[in-house]
Amino acid sequence: MLLSKLASTLGLSFQGKDFDVSALATLKNALPSQLAYFDNPKLSEELKQTKAGVVLLSETFVSLLPKTSQALITPTPHLSMAYASQHFACKPFDTTRPALIAPTAIIGAHVVVGSESSIGENVHIMANVTIGAHVVIEKNVIIYPNVVIYDHSIIKENVILHAGVVIGSDGFGYAHTAKGEHIKVYHTGNVVIEEDVEIGANTTIDRAVFGSTVIKKGTKIDNLVQIAHNCEIGPYTILAAQVGLAGSTKLGQNVVMGGQSASAGHLEIGDFAMIAGRGGVSRSIEGHKTYGGFPLMLQSEWLKTHAKISRFFKKQ
Amino acid sequence: MLLSKLASTLGLSFQGKDFDVSALATLKNALPSQLAYFDNPKLSEELKQTKAGVVLLSETFVSLLPKTSQALITPTPHLSMAYASQHFACKPFDTTRPALIAPTAIIGAHVVVGSESSIGENVHIMANVTIGAHVVIEKNVIIYPNVVIYDHSIIKENVILHAGVVIGSDGFGYAHTAKGEHIKVYHTGNVVIEEDVEIGANTTIDRAVFGSTVIKKGTKIDNLVQIAHNCEIGPYTILAAQVGLAGSTKLGQNVVMGGQSASAGHLEIGDFAMIAGRGGVSRSIEGHKTYGGFPLMLQSEWLKTHAKISRFFKKQ
Amino acid sequence: MLLSKLASTLGLSFQGKDFDVSALATLKNALPSQLAYFDNPKLSEELKQTKAGVVLLSETFVSLLPKTSQALITPTPHLSMAYASQHFACKPFDTTRPALIAPTAIIGAHVVVGSESSIGENVHIMANVTIGAHVVIEKNVIIYPNVVIYDHSIIKENVILHAGVVIGSDGFGYAHTAKGEHIKVYHTGNVVIEEDVEIGANTTIDRAVFGSTVIKKGTKIDNLVQIAHNCEIGPYTILAAQVGLAGSTKLGQNVVMGGQSASAGHLEIGDFAMIAGRGGVSRSIEGHKTYGGFPLMLQSEWLKTHAKISRFFKKQ
Repeated sequence: MLLSKLASTLGLSFQGKDFDVSALATLKNALPSQLAYFDNPKLSEELKQTKAGVVLLSETFVSLLPKTSQALITPTPHLSMAYASQHFACKPFDTTRPALIAPTAIIGAHVVVGSESSIGENVHIMANVTIGAHVVIEKNVIIYPNVVIYDHSIIKENVILHAGVVIGSDGFGYAHTAKGEHIKVYHTGNVVIEEDVEIGANTTIDRAVFGSTVIKKGTKIDNLVQIAHNCEIGPYTILAAQVGLAGSTKLGQNVVMGGQSASAGHLEIGDFAMIAGRGGVSRSIEGHKTYGGFPLMLQSEWLKTHAKISRFFKKQ
Repeated sequence: MLLSKLASTLGLSFQGKDFDVSALATLKNALPSQLAYFDNPKLSEELKQTKAGVVLLSETFVSLLPKTSQALITPTPHLSMAYASQHFACKPFDTTRPALIAPTAIIGAHVVVGSESSIGENVHIMANVTIGAHVVIEKNVIIYPNVVIYDHSIIKENVILHAGVVIGSDGFGYAHTAKGEHIKVYHTGNVVIEEDVEIGANTTIDRAVFGSTVIKKGTKIDNLVQIAHNCEIGPYTILAAQVGLAGSTKLGQNVVMGGQSASAGHLEIGDFAMIAGRGGVSRSIEGHKTYGGFPLMLQSEWLKTHAKISRFFKKQ
Repeated sequence: MLLSKLASTLGLSFQGKDFDVSALATLKNALPSQLAYFDNPKLSEELKQTKAGVVLLSETFVSLLPKTSQALITPTPHLSMAYASQHFACKPFDTTRPALIAPTAIIGAHVVVGSESSIGENVHIMANVTIGAHVVIEKNVIIYPNVVIYDHSIIKENVILHAGVVIGSDGFGYAHTAKGEHIKVYHTGNVVIEEDVEIGANTTIDRAVFGSTVIKKGTKIDNLVQIAHNCEIGPYTILAAQVGLAGSTKLGQNVVMGGQSASAGHLEIGDFAMIAGRGGVSRSIEGHKTYGGFPLMLQSEWLKTHAKISRFFKKQ
């Protein structure tokens, strides 16, 4: 979409030369053909070094912009980005062009595979599975019935997806108008599931806003788990049933999270950390320790504290 | 079904004139052709003013019944209603008659649309979706693969339903026999999803017993959320992943509920209230405040109390 | 598979005579044609009395083995069992042989029924349901759209399964290598759903490692509930939405668990026990009492303790 057309669609003015905007990206990763946005004064170093062809930002910060970037001026850069994102969203689950299916793959009844997706050797896809466009499924993957895989997902060797799993649904991201309406940010990233991962029934894993949500090698995920956009999990991490992870949280190697435990977004959980069932992670935590409770503490402290509470208040 | 036949099927006696009972409803909303039940002495004003053609109630309260209503006498009105409800339940997901599909709608492979449902202009329904009978889907709705929409649901303009969403499943309602068996109350209500709502993957929204479960305009719901029968949510409310709402709870405008938070049934949450992640709402709460914890308190108090608990018990 | 071949595949030596190993089982239940494993010195009585044809165990315990059992010697019996289990797993959801469908059963569009499964009289299976091989579905069962039932499940009379339910997915069980990799234990057990059970939308019930996960007569389960491998629930038990049960837990008759409550694994919950919403069961509990909180206590104590905490820390 031409920058001049995008600007007029959004009702914004732009400074600089016109060009064809190909996609949206972050300030850090944007190419000269792409649009980024700047909303957070703490990231002004990223703004000064961006290679984005055009940046949505408020008038105040235009002077920080490199000469190679055009300015698209708006009082509400995140909201303008949300409005812009819908013009770069493709029609999902397109099936107008053929997929490439290996001759040894077994494809069940009523399976749909989208345009230009590829299915590797010895893959077994069971009945009523729906796979989007531009999906890559490597060899020996097993997909149980009624799984849904959104566009551009990548599923590596030996992965097992149980019935009802959803991979690549849109992240839960909105910009907000002054009136309190929520404007959808179309998520243009994807999900990558690495080798030897197994994912339990009806678990959901959202695609990234930009970039990838990544489930690393050998990670095992139980049923009804929620993994939000832009998380990175593993390798060899274990998530028990009904765990919930908010957006952009990173779990290291061989982390173990018990049933119904959860983490807030934008945190890091260190290698070999263990979170007891129901534990609620609300700050970044070191590895090689066992945590529990909500607010989170060391599990040993949690047990002691609750024993003390029980004893103390029996006497009151 | 003739009242005389229904009475003999249920093993109950009735007083008054016979007529054809068309459906079940609440005391308050029942029409002269309908059956209601009376179980709660606090609602005796509703009983006195009901327009129901017939009411299931115990002998004690027959004298309160208006002359226009017949009495169907039972020592266990709720249980009798449960037994009666099964005689008014239709075979679900009927496909014997055609649906009405707008010419600009795009319907994916292996999609089933039930009898007399209507699909509006520019609707995009992806593969393996199943839609019941008498469903209304207005224009520009996007339905991702493997969604299920039960009979009589109404989905208004611009709604987005992600993969695996279930709309209109039966509410979790039973009457109980003296022996402890649970007798299903067939839910004859529906679900209404208003304009601009987006619902995340594998979320479930139950139909109402009578009337409607309503998700109001512009509300956004994340993955794996549970909304029970007869809830009313929104407009412009936000429910993060794994939220659970019990039956008949009402959330106002622009309420925000964090991940894994929940509410008990029959409560009201005021406009612009915020519930932190894991918050457990166990009483009705005012709007324009932020709450957290379980039992629920103001979030600021919750943070203070937990800091004090931690400090105090370290010394014990 | 011949024991000699299995031993060489696993890189283990065996003592005794060769035979054709038919399946894996527990020490207690294994037949003379089957393989068991011994990992827990507390179970040495079971080892002494096993009828298993061959047992995976460490050299130390070979002397306890009955003469009728061969020894397959390994320093890591559970890990060796995991490696062995994959050789006894069948290709799932086979459809190469016909199913037996009663003439009065109604089968919706795009339904798949696996090899040698049987569907009883008056069963109603709606669109896009996928049923595995060797499944038994008795009369009058109602299965809503997009349900998935794995191989060897048994669904008894009058059961209702709502949309998106998954029955019989693999339990979440792995053995671990010294490097921290997780080796899948293939689950050869099944799920049995007894008469008059109703299961809510998108609920997941895992198959047993060996033997059966059992949902007993008249039990009612709400939406988005997780039941792990080898649980036994009911009869007439009620599980509200988003409940999670870990592996091998047993719930008695007429137990009630509120929304988002949970239990750790290998526990027993007595008849007529009630667990309030959010209650976390972390030890076996007696019946006929009401519990709540996490750590779990009597609900009456939980209410008192929290009232005291609130009062006490307001003054601090």
